[in-house]
Amino acid sequence: MADEDCIILLSGGMDSGVLLAWAKKNYSGTIYTLGFSYGSKHNEKELACARKLSEVFSAQFIIIEMPFINDLFSSSLLQTGENIPDGSYNDNDMRSTVVPFRNGIMLSIAAGYAENKGIRKVLIGAHSGDHPVYPDCSPVFIDAMSKASQSGTYANVSIEAPFAAIGKDKIAEIGRSLDFDFSLTWSCYKGGEIHCGICATCIERKIALEFTKGLDPTRYSS
Amino acid sequence: MADEDCIILLSGGMDSGVLLAWAKKNYSGTIYTLGFSYGSKHNEKELACARKLSEVFSAQFIIIEMPFINDLFSSSLLQTGENIPDGSYNDNDMRSTVVPFRNGIMLSIAAGYAENKGIRKVLIGAHSGDHPVYPDCSPVFIDAMSKASQSGTYANVSIEAPFAAIGKDKIAEIGRSLDFDFSLTWSCYKGGEIHCGICATCIERKIALEFTKGLDPTRYSS
Repeated sequence: MADEDCIILLSGGMDSGVLLAWAKKNYSGTIYTLGFSYGSKHNEKELACARKLSEVFSAQFIIIEMPFINDLFSSSLLQTGENIPDGSYNDNDMRSTVVPFRNGIMLSIAAGYAENKGIRKVLIGAHSGDHPVYPDCSPVFIDAMSKASQSGTYANVSIEAPFAAIGKDKIAEIGRSLDFDFSLTWSCYKGGEIHCGICATCIERKIALEFTKGLDPTRYSS
Repeated sequence: MADEDCIILLSGGMDSGVLLAWAKKNYSGTIYTLGFSYGSKHNEKELACARKLSEVFSAQFIIIEMPFINDLFSSSLLQTGENIPDGSYNDNDMRSTVVPFRNGIMLSIAAGYAENKGIRKVLIGAHSGDHPVYPDCSPVFIDAMSKASQSGTYANVSIEAPFAAIGKDKIAEIGRSLDFDFSLTWSCYKGGEIHCGICATCIERKIALEFTKGLDPTRYSS
């Protein structure tokens, strides 16, 4: 177990939620969780999950306000954007859900927060299934970003993606092995009352949680 | 002359001001200038200069609000921080003016803005004199950050520091050769009525502007 503090980008989705449970087992220091308020349609839902997850795992939760993203950037994920497309991530129109360089911005802020507190590790839940649509989830990106944060800080802050080489199905299995409560997480991009069940992230969640062998507690609209 | 649009991080200081003048000569496309409101003591002064510079050079000026920096980070540069130390950058206490990973955060937001507009170039005025105190000005950092933004965007956004290999004295000379009006810029970290003349950035400004051979229009308190 690593005897150090760490920071986790915590969206409130299942990937970063399982990452938090995993880190709780692997890091003995204080865990700081960063949530970002940036105007996505499901922001309120996912931040509520991030807050609850942080309580459950005794992490220090901090919300960062980034109003400029909703004000200046275009994405169907944002409140100012068009409707979220239905369908799987294989469909070309899923690119409309990309928020430009979102992970780069969030990781940079996390690296600054880490430097400010003398923490040397930032963790992100990016996984192998993320790469085709989201370039700022790829291992090449994570590696370059880590080099930037290491060279750009006195604390030599590194960025790691422990799930970079595995898919969401394996993340679900890790969660199951840790007795993780998936009902504490939110995925649906539409941010409605319950998960829609037909947007790409709902479809992906459904498929992944089949690997928990019946432990999916999610209520889907369809 | 490069026939493309570009983005410049414009603090309103002399380095980024001369960079804007230099880019105006070297890029024929639209220049977007990003100013950041992050709660530094001299933020109001420098953003007023950034706005004026953008008008003079017909650049599109955008202000990004980053309230989390003043709220969460510690630095004597910030309104929430202790007093700005007097003396030169060689003094050890100048490290108190570091805002953790500030350039990393600003460049990431600029890369996101570039991606959103399909712009492929972000320029920053970091120079060789910046490196010892500010790790997020070093060529190693800039290079890693550029790799991160290239790999993390569809537009393959690159980050360049045209003045990385030269000092502030050479920037002053370039400004002189471009008939740049240095009175349009603000340096002093204290953000008073006029430049204090005794903080590190004022001392550095004075020395550099001697290379303009008498063209320093700045009024200093001492």
